[in-house]
Amino acid sequence: MPQQITIGLFGFGSVGSGIYHVLKKKQIPRIHLKTIVVKSPNKPRSIDSKNFSYRAEDILEDTEINVVLELIDDAQAAYTIVKKALESKKHVVTANKKMLANHFEELVALSKKHKVSLLYEASVCGSIPILRTLETSFAYDNLKSLKAISNGTSNYVLTRLFQKLQPFKDIITDAQKHGFAESDPTLDIDGWDSKFKLIINNYHAFGVLNTPEEILNLGIRHVKPEDIEFAKEKNFSIKLIGHSNLDEEGLTAYVAPQFIPKTEALTSIDFENNAVEIDAEFAHQHLLKGKGAGSIPTASAVLSDLVSLFDDYCYGYSKARQQSAEFNDEKLIKVYMSSYDRKDLKPIKFETEILCGTQKHLQYKIGKISVKSLKQQTADLSSELFVAVFPD
Amino acid sequence: MPQQITIGLFGFGSVGSGIYHVLKKKQIPRIHLKTIVVKSPNKPRSIDSKNFSYRAEDILEDTEINVVLELIDDAQAAYTIVKKALESKKHVVTANKKMLANHFEELVALSKKHKVSLLYEASVCGSIPILRTLETSFAYDNLKSLKAISNGTSNYVLTRLFQKLQPFKDIITDAQKHGFAESDPTLDIDGWDSKFKLIINNYHAFGVLNTPEEILNLGIRHVKPEDIEFAKEKNFSIKLIGHSNLDEEGLTAYVAPQFIPKTEALTSIDFENNAVEIDAEFAHQHLLKGKGAGSIPTASAVLSDLVSLFDDYCYGYSKARQQSAEFNDEKLIKVYMSSYDRKDLKPIKFETEILCGTQKHLQYKIGKISVKSLKQQTADLSSELFVAVFPD
Repeated sequence: MPQQITIGLFGFGSVGSGIYHVLKKKQIPRIHLKTIVVKSPNKPRSIDSKNFSYRAEDILEDTEINVVLELIDDAQAAYTIVKKALESKKHVVTANKKMLANHFEELVALSKKHKVSLLYEASVCGSIPILRTLETSFAYDNLKSLKAISNGTSNYVLTRLFQKLQPFKDIITDAQKHGFAESDPTLDIDGWDSKFKLIINNYHAFGVLNTPEEILNLGIRHVKPEDIEFAKEKNFSIKLIGHSNLDEEGLTAYVAPQFIPKTEALTSIDFENNAVEIDAEFAHQHLLKGKGAGSIPTASAVLSDLVSLFDDYCYGYSKARQQSAEFNDEKLIKVYMSSYDRKDLKPIKFETEILCGTQKHLQYKIGKISVKSLKQQTADLSSELFVAVFPD
Repeated sequence: MPQQITIGLFGFGSVGSGIYHVLKKKQIPRIHLKTIVVKSPNKPRSIDSKNFSYRAEDILEDTEINVVLELIDDAQAAYTIVKKALESKKHVVTANKKMLANHFEELVALSKKHKVSLLYEASVCGSIPILRTLETSFAYDNLKSLKAISNGTSNYVLTRLFQKLQPFKDIITDAQKHGFAESDPTLDIDGWDSKFKLIINNYHAFGVLNTPEEILNLGIRHVKPEDIEFAKEKNFSIKLIGHSNLDEEGLTAYVAPQFIPKTEALTSIDFENNAVEIDAEFAHQHLLKGKGAGSIPTASAVLSDLVSLFDDYCYGYSKARQQSAEFNDEKLIKVYMSSYDRKDLKPIKFETEILCGTQKHLQYKIGKISVKSLKQQTADLSSELFVAVFPD
């Protein structure tokens, strides 16, 4: 058990500055933030520049620092830092979902090899303690499914679209103005961010580890007012869901917009909120809802990881040890696709076609297709096709 | 760290038989259920009588048994068992909220003195991991409020009343028939059960420890169809809430029916489900929803406590160590009271009266009153007065 936590912090963006302020406010005995390393000396920041250093070695080669907080954006640079930190036998707390999803196995193995903790609660759903809950409370339950609304930007956009019919682009512009969307929203609205989080969740929930290349991610970029109308008429909401489902045939997992019946709890998760719905054999259905993003809420998850180091906490990965669930992308799912141009629907071949229809000028089709086939057939689409999963 | 968990189980009712079946199904290495002690040799049970013993000493004096699972109904007998178990340096996992609320300080001190764990996740909100979440994820956040729907029976009854206007007694009879209410529903519908859970929650969330005598509990026994109509017309639900709120003036805490705006998440918690809403300075608002009762869901919480003993887990009680929040029952709250008989409203003196009205034959008043004064004035009421907290 470390008697003293001496922190080297990489990054002073939203979460980095958040944890700085939280630590300053809490003044926790035996926790000391010693060094902050940032990349650019010229960027204006909320605290004096004398607080910053610009050389990674100032943290990585400081033997007094026993914990590295990695809170930078650049996943590749983060990987280099985290790797070196673990090799230097420093505990690591990170929020970098992309880095984790890309280098999960290697980094977990490194942390085990060097007997240090690698914690990353803040990487998935902000302040919702989903990883800790999976690890401690559901470690020996048998999980059947996990559905996550894990991207605040997409959920904000979808909530606004359901409030008032308007073009997708107008909302994105407005969301950017209010700080709910990045200047390049691709990672968020095309499902990449949700996919990284799904990969992390699945390792803890089902013991299955996928690479980002293996997992289908469909986004909400091409959702149209008529799709929203269609959903409303049929008493659905549309949510971007990281969906994982385990049965005898294996683990089905993908990120896609989904039509969710209005009676289901996930429908009520609005704006930038996140939520995770778990169905477990013994505990049955659970919902965790909270702030999925934001400087201080995400910092609260970093803080909970930090203080748990006093108890030598590290993830048990009990599902990976217990089970041998296999990823299976052959499963058929029911899918809705739509476009203003009927030609756009052609490239996607359903296994079984169920329904064809129109909603004003919109053409749509519903049918069954395997996750694998849907992934292959949507890989290089350049059209404005909107694809969403439909309930069975 | 115990290499082997050898269990002595007291009780084979709903939760006791639940954990028996869960352990049998999971076959977790290094966990062995050795002895089951029950009270009555004559009660019919789902497994053969050769599995049972009838002498507490068969567990308490067995030095091989290092974990006692206390899952009996009788709070006084449970107290004797748990005390002896802790004194014999056995870890204890219990679901007995009444016993804990009555003997909290002594039992926690005993577990510390004998350096064994006393865990009780299953005592509050069944399979919702609320205590672990408070202990691990919000231990260093500053909690502002905690609202819990922690009694499945009351919530089931209220949900049914909002579905269809009908007399309270008819629903209770029906709930008893379906196994959602005990033959004597007093503990549930008069808010006692919720109060025991509130006391446990508050110790972990705010570090404040109350005795049951200090806390106001109002129940739902006297809610009438016209109260439901009144709520519906004004876009409220009514929920039985364990309510705790911390501000500069201290911790206000009570159990009472509350009018909840329909837009709030707690409104959507229906039937026998439970939920806890937390508001924290850093993490902001969180909701945890799940099965608050039931044999197997509650057993899943017992299981999570059991396996955490492999990691020497015990509660940190960090809030009790960090803060010195003080209980304060002087705070004014806004209260609604109603009865068919105007005379019934007389004994309660508001600090400020806000509104008087009628709903069909029902007379009601809304006003402000301190929690302390409300507790005193409702202590010996024999009338059919319904009292509920109204939003500010």
